[in-house]
Amino acid sequence: MKTIVIVIFDSFTDIDLFLMWDILGRNTKDWRVRILGTKAEHLSANGLAVKTHGRIAEANDADVVLFSSGKLGVKASLSDKAFVTAFSLNVEKQLIGSICGGAFILERLGLLRAGPATTHPDALEELRALGVDGREQALVCNGNVATAGGCLSAVYLIGWVVEVLFGRAKRIDTLRELIPAGQRDTFEQLIELSIKKGVSAA
Amino acid sequence: MKTIVIVIFDSFTDIDLFLMWDILGRNTKDWRVRILGTKAEHLSANGLAVKTHGRIAEANDADVVLFSSGKLGVKASLSDKAFVTAFSLNVEKQLIGSICGGAFILERLGLLRAGPATTHPDALEELRALGVDGREQALVCNGNVATAGGCLSAVYLIGWVVEVLFGRAKRIDTLRELIPAGQRDTFEQLIELSIKKGVSAA
Repeated sequence: MKTIVIVIFDSFTDIDLFLMWDILGRNTKDWRVRILGTKAEHLSANGLAVKTHGRIAEANDADVVLFSSGKLGVKASLSDKAFVTAFSLNVEKQLIGSICGGAFILERLGLLRAGPATTHPDALEELRALGVDGREQALVCNGNVATAGGCLSAVYLIGWVVEVLFGRAKRIDTLRELIPAGQRDTFEQLIELSIKKGVSAA
Repeated sequence: MKTIVIVIFDSFTDIDLFLMWDILGRNTKDWRVRILGTKAEHLSANGLAVKTHGRIAEANDADVVLFSSGKLGVKASLSDKAFVTAFSLNVEKQLIGSICGGAFILERLGLLRAGPATTHPDALEELRALGVDGREQALVCNGNVATAGGCLSAVYLIGWVVEVLFGRAKRIDTLRELIPAGQRDTFEQLIELSIKKGVSAA
């Protein structure tokens, strides 16, 4: 049983938590997913209150650590020394990923120095200004670190996590339920290609 | 200012609320979006507690009424006479839509008798067994009533709502932020085609 955690904060982008949460939450045999934060409850950018299952330091012991996004929330979190110093992640043992603005947290944790990364297209220049090799690409994987850009890319990020841990068949099975009726071939090809392109980016 | 409501219930499918909620919630000038239920708080299928903004009878006065999904939640709601009889929707004046299993609520409200509809592919036979002209298609629009099937089809459903109310440019603008980095053309074509196919289904 793997443990996958999703890190949130106040003003997190709703969909960037909920898409990952829902896809992962449907499987309770192979992994458990926990939402972590600095408080018992965080308020989303659109105003939904979400209870956390644990505190951010738990991320250090998880098999997979995923960072959600949100311009204001990420900025505030990076200004909070307690937030930044709570993480002691291990790229040798853990899979670490981000969606959209979560890339700025990976950058601060020193995880994007080794190679290319992506973020939301609107934030790409800002990421490059920090010295990161920013690519306008849905998913960029570099060893055990993956960044995704554009909300719906969470599908590729989760696909990558499941494929690395459990193989391609489990990944296809995990994402199947999400695919629009009558568009299975289109989406399965898009997912396959986006993950392949992500893995070959580094 | 239009009012768009999303109806939930206990055991609602997480993503089928949150995807619509997030896309719509980013715009606070053209519409306001409210989550309605039978209680002050509903628990999602994956265990998130979500506070509602109002009760389901409010749907009768909204410009747009969207039903979320969830096999268990829909079934329980349809067994609840108070739930079913609370709705008095007007297809002449309102846009009414559903994602996945929400189609079964539209069916019970008598809104799918006039033409074709869709639902999650896994539930299509069950919908057909009720006498509905069920299509394995991402979006099916019939006048002011639209059904969508497969979680990510919520993007097409919301696209249809925004295009009907505010035009194509606003629809493109509304969905732009969601699109994976580097895949804008692919997704804009897919969205355009899916909505066109939906509108021409009836």
